[in-house]
Amino acid sequence: MEEKLAILNAKLKEIKNLQAAESVLGWDQQVFMPPGGAVARAEQLSTLSKVAHELFIADEIGVLLSDLAGAGFPYDSDEASLIRVVRRDYDKARKLPTALVAELSRTFSLGQQIWTQARANKDFAHFQDILAKIVDLNIQVAEAYGYEDCLYDALLDQFEPGMKTAEVNRVFGELKVELVPLVQAIVERVGRADDSVLKQDFDETAQWDFGMMPLKAIGFDLERGRQDKSVHPFTINFSINDVRITTRVSRDTFPSALFSTLHEGGHALYEQNGDPSLEGSFLAGGTSLGVHESQSRLWENVVGRSREFWQFYYPQLQEFFPTQLQDTSLNQFYRAINRVEPSFIRVEADEVTYNLHIFLRFELEQDLLEQRLKVADLPEAWNAKMQASLGLTPPDDALGVLQDIHWSGGMMGYFPTYTLGNVLSLQFYQQTLQDVPDLPEQFSRGEFGAPLAWFKDKIHRHGRKFTANELVRRVTGAARIEAQPYLAYIKRKYTEIYGL
Amino acid sequence: MEEKLAILNAKLKEIKNLQAAESVLGWDQQVFMPPGGAVARAEQLSTLSKVAHELFIADEIGVLLSDLAGAGFPYDSDEASLIRVVRRDYDKARKLPTALVAELSRTFSLGQQIWTQARANKDFAHFQDILAKIVDLNIQVAEAYGYEDCLYDALLDQFEPGMKTAEVNRVFGELKVELVPLVQAIVERVGRADDSVLKQDFDETAQWDFGMMPLKAIGFDLERGRQDKSVHPFTINFSINDVRITTRVSRDTFPSALFSTLHEGGHALYEQNGDPSLEGSFLAGGTSLGVHESQSRLWENVVGRSREFWQFYYPQLQEFFPTQLQDTSLNQFYRAINRVEPSFIRVEADEVTYNLHIFLRFELEQDLLEQRLKVADLPEAWNAKMQASLGLTPPDDALGVLQDIHWSGGMMGYFPTYTLGNVLSLQFYQQTLQDVPDLPEQFSRGEFGAPLAWFKDKIHRHGRKFTANELVRRVTGAARIEAQPYLAYIKRKYTEIYGL
Repeated sequence: MEEKLAILNAKLKEIKNLQAAESVLGWDQQVFMPPGGAVARAEQLSTLSKVAHELFIADEIGVLLSDLAGAGFPYDSDEASLIRVVRRDYDKARKLPTALVAELSRTFSLGQQIWTQARANKDFAHFQDILAKIVDLNIQVAEAYGYEDCLYDALLDQFEPGMKTAEVNRVFGELKVELVPLVQAIVERVGRADDSVLKQDFDETAQWDFGMMPLKAIGFDLERGRQDKSVHPFTINFSINDVRITTRVSRDTFPSALFSTLHEGGHALYEQNGDPSLEGSFLAGGTSLGVHESQSRLWENVVGRSREFWQFYYPQLQEFFPTQLQDTSLNQFYRAINRVEPSFIRVEADEVTYNLHIFLRFELEQDLLEQRLKVADLPEAWNAKMQASLGLTPPDDALGVLQDIHWSGGMMGYFPTYTLGNVLSLQFYQQTLQDVPDLPEQFSRGEFGAPLAWFKDKIHRHGRKFTANELVRRVTGAARIEAQPYLAYIKRKYTEIYGL
Repeated sequence: MEEKLAILNAKLKEIKNLQAAESVLGWDQQVFMPPGGAVARAEQLSTLSKVAHELFIADEIGVLLSDLAGAGFPYDSDEASLIRVVRRDYDKARKLPTALVAELSRTFSLGQQIWTQARANKDFAHFQDILAKIVDLNIQVAEAYGYEDCLYDALLDQFEPGMKTAEVNRVFGELKVELVPLVQAIVERVGRADDSVLKQDFDETAQWDFGMMPLKAIGFDLERGRQDKSVHPFTINFSINDVRITTRVSRDTFPSALFSTLHEGGHALYEQNGDPSLEGSFLAGGTSLGVHESQSRLWENVVGRSREFWQFYYPQLQEFFPTQLQDTSLNQFYRAINRVEPSFIRVEADEVTYNLHIFLRFELEQDLLEQRLKVADLPEAWNAKMQASLGLTPPDDALGVLQDIHWSGGMMGYFPTYTLGNVLSLQFYQQTLQDVPDLPEQFSRGEFGAPLAWFKDKIHRHGRKFTANELVRRVTGAARIEAQPYLAYIKRKYTEIYGL
């Protein structure tokens, strides 16, 4: 068995190396590649992905996995976890016919091009046909993977392994009941938080330099990572010892670059702090998008938008931007960065309304995939839901149904993981606070090391060994993902800010 | 035949894509990778190289090449050239036993680590054993490739396909006869060129910005390439539409960053201007290191250190650095950047003594490989040759035998291509001047577009279709590589500067 495990590991290592190479090329494509490189880069990425896929779906790997499944390793061991996780990936990879994989790749690549044009021209009709094809291909993918309860389960499982649509419905239902009236109550008192102070001229280099301070303070290791600029901020890694994040800095608004740095920094901490023994294996990396997002949202929102964080950093920020901030108190600034206001664009939404954007997408995706909604009728359905949940009707489709890249790139079943991340961040953090009750006081003194140590021990070091639900049970003792800790956090925070 | 060619091209395209990925990872390693990424990166590169090698040496490619060899394509056609060049690469790749390839990779990687330590500690003894092994492995490689006249031919052929040691000996012999006495004559008049003006404080950003002007002026396309900083400047490409160069900027000396930019820019022009039909094929890219170096040296030295270049740029340079240059005339500056002085370090040597550094290495390499010289006796032999040719004895081995990275990385047979590049630059450029006689006047007016157009037509567009010797015949009509144009250029230029 030892020998078979060694053979399996050697084969998997090569596949991981090819995937890491793909990531390096992807990183470069978004960060430094000159425009001329695009066509060749697409071909290089396609070859890497094809060669890695072919090596992975080889019969021999299936035989090794079957032989090793009976080896009797304990469930929690690296060995049993590897066999379990690779078997899951392997079965998924084998289930997609090669012709379908090629068709997906072509269509999604084309979809992104067409979407870019459609969004620029605010012209949904231009995007409609390819989106219909993308919906159809996603149905084919779900059928190929197979599912028990509903088709959406098969797609969701790609991003949130083991999670069921019914489970998401339960959690989102609980959230919706509380968040929708909360937003309505806040809207009536919108004047209590004024964010005009954030809309001034903030030097880009100073913003970058300021952001590096909390990034280091939360534990991002610059010997094993770096930050660059890109149009869309993201986190990517090629090793636990080489984790890259990006941010975007906009001169006319302050905290967006910082919060982007904290958000991606949270993702990066998860990747940098896997157990070194998992390096380069299929167990390395975050276990699901929801758990990943729990880490990024924790640092961006729960910590980064907290009063204690700014008790420490606001005086320093005032030194960076004395002219802009001299007449703004800590309390005014805290309210400004936590202002809640219904708006059209998800990625610019505040912490509370953000989830309403997700509910809408989650519902529309299912309507499309279950063929209850025609693609042609999607903009109308989008706008109706926006009006119902946020009281707004987008003036055009660029501010509505065309705003996100996900569908154009073929990703359906992805959106709910954002709100699952919000929910998980508090379900985990409630436990952190039980173990380290004076965390907020630590933050107010500029001490940010404790959460990393805690999350490293409870979550990061395990990599992909346990699913999100398994982690919830292990870390919190709860039987399942629960909305209450997140709702309690939101209500407490915004009741105070808005005097509800 | 069309179908077989299509199958061959599809297979080769995948291999080229994997090699391009390897180049992207190599670029990132030298330019942006955080230190922690090194171990994983070495593994990723090793996998890419192994997978590409295995795909390339497949029997099927040999069968396709043999079938296509009889197809009767004209010699100059892309098809015949592809079959000819790939056959050469394929036979070479197949001749090295897999075990030897793995041994080379391990030894060269270890060699570079040990050399880095040995150079830092000025301790040749530390490097001696691994160098002996590297020499032995190079002998094994040469034997595996096979050769007619001498072992060195097989190694030289890796970098300069088709070139023979006897040919290099002839050219170097002619150079030596003239250059050694020239250097001696200059040494006696060393005071005629003072370069102290170059050793001042030059702001790094201003140096970078200044360098971008001639880089663009000579035709480097920033839509299809970029420049970054690295410890050792280099050029690399992932496509004819994505060619990257690097430079290093040192605050306390002016022209080295600029000349490095022009040098790498010359390499980059060759890569950016291949015929688009060769993109992604085995015919893309420079045909040999010597021809590549002819392009970099042309722009760095023949143009970049010419009086006409500075007639245009010196007034602008004075505007960039008014304090530093206000008391220095164009003529003084021209002499400063062309100062000839024997020195220990090859990469810092002037245009004339540079070749003497190459002769020494070329001779010592052959002595080692023919086992006329023991590795233990190498430092002594190095120092004796330095004394004989440049009148200097290195005070330690870091300034002597340990200065270059090449041998530590296994590259023997590489050094002569630097001087072949110098020679070829003038043999080609003499022809350029016949076709465009007013080139120097164009330079003095800031017009630098003509050489690129000429070289693109004569050399760049052909990629690897023709060898260096074939290009010499096609471009200049000469039967072989000739030292005279280069010697004439050197003598004319330095006779004037030093009043010989």
